[in-house]
Amino acid sequence: MSRIVSLDVEDVRFPTSRELDGSDAMNPDPDYSAAYVVLRTDDGPDGHGFAFTIGRGNDVQCAAIGLLAGHVVGRDVEAVCADLGGFSRSLLADSQLRWLGPEKGVMHMAVGAVVNAAWDLAAKRAGLPVWQLLARMTPEQIVGLVDFRYLTDALTPDEALELLRAAEPGRSERAALLAEEGYPAYTTSPGWLGYDDDKLARLAREAVEEGFDLIKLKVGADLEDDVRRLAVAREAVGPDVRIAIDANQRWSVPEAVPWLTRLAEFDPCFIEEPTSPDDVLGHAAIRRAVAPMRVATGEHVQNRVVFKQLLQAGAIDVLQLDATRVAGINENVAVLLLAAKFGVPVYPHAGGVGLCELVQHLSMFDFVAVSGSMADRSIEYVDHLHEHFAVPVRMRGGRYLPPADPGSGAEILEASRRAHRYPGGAVWRTV
Amino acid sequence: MSRIVSLDVEDVRFPTSRELDGSDAMNPDPDYSAAYVVLRTDDGPDGHGFAFTIGRGNDVQCAAIGLLAGHVVGRDVEAVCADLGGFSRSLLADSQLRWLGPEKGVMHMAVGAVVNAAWDLAAKRAGLPVWQLLARMTPEQIVGLVDFRYLTDALTPDEALELLRAAEPGRSERAALLAEEGYPAYTTSPGWLGYDDDKLARLAREAVEEGFDLIKLKVGADLEDDVRRLAVAREAVGPDVRIAIDANQRWSVPEAVPWLTRLAEFDPCFIEEPTSPDDVLGHAAIRRAVAPMRVATGEHVQNRVVFKQLLQAGAIDVLQLDATRVAGINENVAVLLLAAKFGVPVYPHAGGVGLCELVQHLSMFDFVAVSGSMADRSIEYVDHLHEHFAVPVRMRGGRYLPPADPGSGAEILEASRRAHRYPGGAVWRTV
Repeated sequence: MSRIVSLDVEDVRFPTSRELDGSDAMNPDPDYSAAYVVLRTDDGPDGHGFAFTIGRGNDVQCAAIGLLAGHVVGRDVEAVCADLGGFSRSLLADSQLRWLGPEKGVMHMAVGAVVNAAWDLAAKRAGLPVWQLLARMTPEQIVGLVDFRYLTDALTPDEALELLRAAEPGRSERAALLAEEGYPAYTTSPGWLGYDDDKLARLAREAVEEGFDLIKLKVGADLEDDVRRLAVAREAVGPDVRIAIDANQRWSVPEAVPWLTRLAEFDPCFIEEPTSPDDVLGHAAIRRAVAPMRVATGEHVQNRVVFKQLLQAGAIDVLQLDATRVAGINENVAVLLLAAKFGVPVYPHAGGVGLCELVQHLSMFDFVAVSGSMADRSIEYVDHLHEHFAVPVRMRGGRYLPPADPGSGAEILEASRRAHRYPGGAVWRTV
Repeated sequence: MSRIVSLDVEDVRFPTSRELDGSDAMNPDPDYSAAYVVLRTDDGPDGHGFAFTIGRGNDVQCAAIGLLAGHVVGRDVEAVCADLGGFSRSLLADSQLRWLGPEKGVMHMAVGAVVNAAWDLAAKRAGLPVWQLLARMTPEQIVGLVDFRYLTDALTPDEALELLRAAEPGRSERAALLAEEGYPAYTTSPGWLGYDDDKLARLAREAVEEGFDLIKLKVGADLEDDVRRLAVAREAVGPDVRIAIDANQRWSVPEAVPWLTRLAEFDPCFIEEPTSPDDVLGHAAIRRAVAPMRVATGEHVQNRVVFKQLLQAGAIDVLQLDATRVAGINENVAVLLLAAKFGVPVYPHAGGVGLCELVQHLSMFDFVAVSGSMADRSIEYVDHLHEHFAVPVRMRGGRYLPPADPGSGAEILEASRRAHRYPGGAVWRTV
């Protein structure tokens, strides 16, 4: 019998603020970081996971992950991998730790990192990428992954089963299509606020050359700058490429509406995070006021309960789940089921460090086994830091090619982790 | 010129789980804890604050508070105390730390602890209890305390000013009335789930003898137990004392409604936390379904944005703010203003360790300078751990007497902190 013998945590940070990569209206100088966890086993592969942060506080995020060791170390690997729903629920059930959320913020992201590490472990033991491990489960097994507490007024286990059963027939055809065509992607690489107009135009042109048909620009710091930058981007990409915009929570509701009304002439594909991610009713009010402009949010949405309400309130047109904000793959399966129930397309948030590697599995599982559709769906892509991953994403013509290697995609190369260890790693000693 | 010379953090825990004090349907074995912070100055009093937790994770909460040292140490004490709004905003503006919420969970509570410590410092320097320091501010000064971002669709600074100006005339009369009569309280001491029926009945009778006209029982673990315990309590207190019930987030919406329908015969004063604190729309649905039973929540509501929506959606009849869940007194001033705007009474959450000591200041400020009313308002009271405080609450006839000593009430006696230091303190070495 194999056991989990340790839960090891590493504070890994990349000094991205030096280049203003990732700069937006709320986050001028992020240092992309991973509160990294390895579930070590005494036999066979280890499981890797992380919570993504943007620098300061990554040590506290690591400490929160470490609090979960008592729930994990000593457990039978096979039993954990055979019941990832039960594993996830056991981490969320610690009432003393739950008080620190509940189900939100640092403690919830800690659960997500450990849950995702268990999925990495399970997928490696199964010899499958996570998206395939998920897509080969029966509808009953998939429903068993989900914690339906606080969801049943919008989605019951029976309704979820029905959705999944309806998508069962075409699974293998869709998996074959995915292998052939890949999954649609869009890129934010051109659009960071810290880039000047020339760099924006050059990167936007490059994105189109690479095959992307949707790019995203950061907005919200200065209205006239936004107007100018949107014009520069439109000029660079031509009339046929869609442009989305992202305000990163910059506005209150009464500020968002006139600002967006001014930007409507550029016909954005969607406006992302116009206001607080906690403000379900605010998003709904903005959506009504700026229709037909589409409203998107999700990268900072704390858990399935808020996603449920965004859908119930008709607050969003596009749902942007994040791989490490909620309590891992299990909670994201709940979010995918909710989105399918409400017929709202999912455009996962990515970028950061390793988020592209993680979220692609969720979208591909969704295509094969849940929504059954790639139409009006797209995974964010940023060409950044992939070289540090054991299984980096593979892109072709502006699309994600499905990963074939076993695991979740979370594993960062040991040499990269060592060099970027904070504060002692080689990269930080030279800053 | 006096400066803040250090931000010291202490992990203080009380082994309350031994007696099942504080046990409820979600929290069977809490060890009431304080992630305690002292802002030390080189001249004059220090400022004390804390975040309340229930045990495991208090160390992570302490580490999160420690992250804020760089924003605090070296600052001019007089400048901080003269602009507590600016101080609060400066802590919330760290974009890297904000990522860990945003404005929720461990990192937000950390900001709250430090903000409250600054209020304790300011009040001690002014020689006033916090409620008086607040109640002597001009309407303009009070409005300047509040971060209106994400609020202006429900409450603008001008509307807040108007509210505060309308309450200005009677301030001194109300302060005099408060000194004479105290502020209404209710008690949860009889109602913990871990107590047997005899202890429940005895404590309920004692509560009435002490002058309380409202007690609260925990419910939600087992329906027939709830029915029996409510009957026992009603028998013990007689027909005139009100009984509120608290489910501590136990139910999904479709579970809450039939359970509460069954308990309606006992005519509860309100049902507290029937479901997830994040579920604005769920609370609204439950409220519609169980009317005229009143719905309450707030102790786990993460920030002003969620309180705003609970009020906008007509989801609650009773607002239960908490002293250490949100970003301190500044954010709670915003919550009081929102409650006044929407005409919803505030029944602060207390108990825990030191929460009674803290929240009384908010309710008394509210009475004197905001809502101007004590009608249908009450502060929770639990007779527990007060002896550890430098300025413990004073109760008379089931009412809080206004504190006269300078400060916020947060200061725990140094000997108590030393004995309860985790894990090295004397109390924990003997467990």
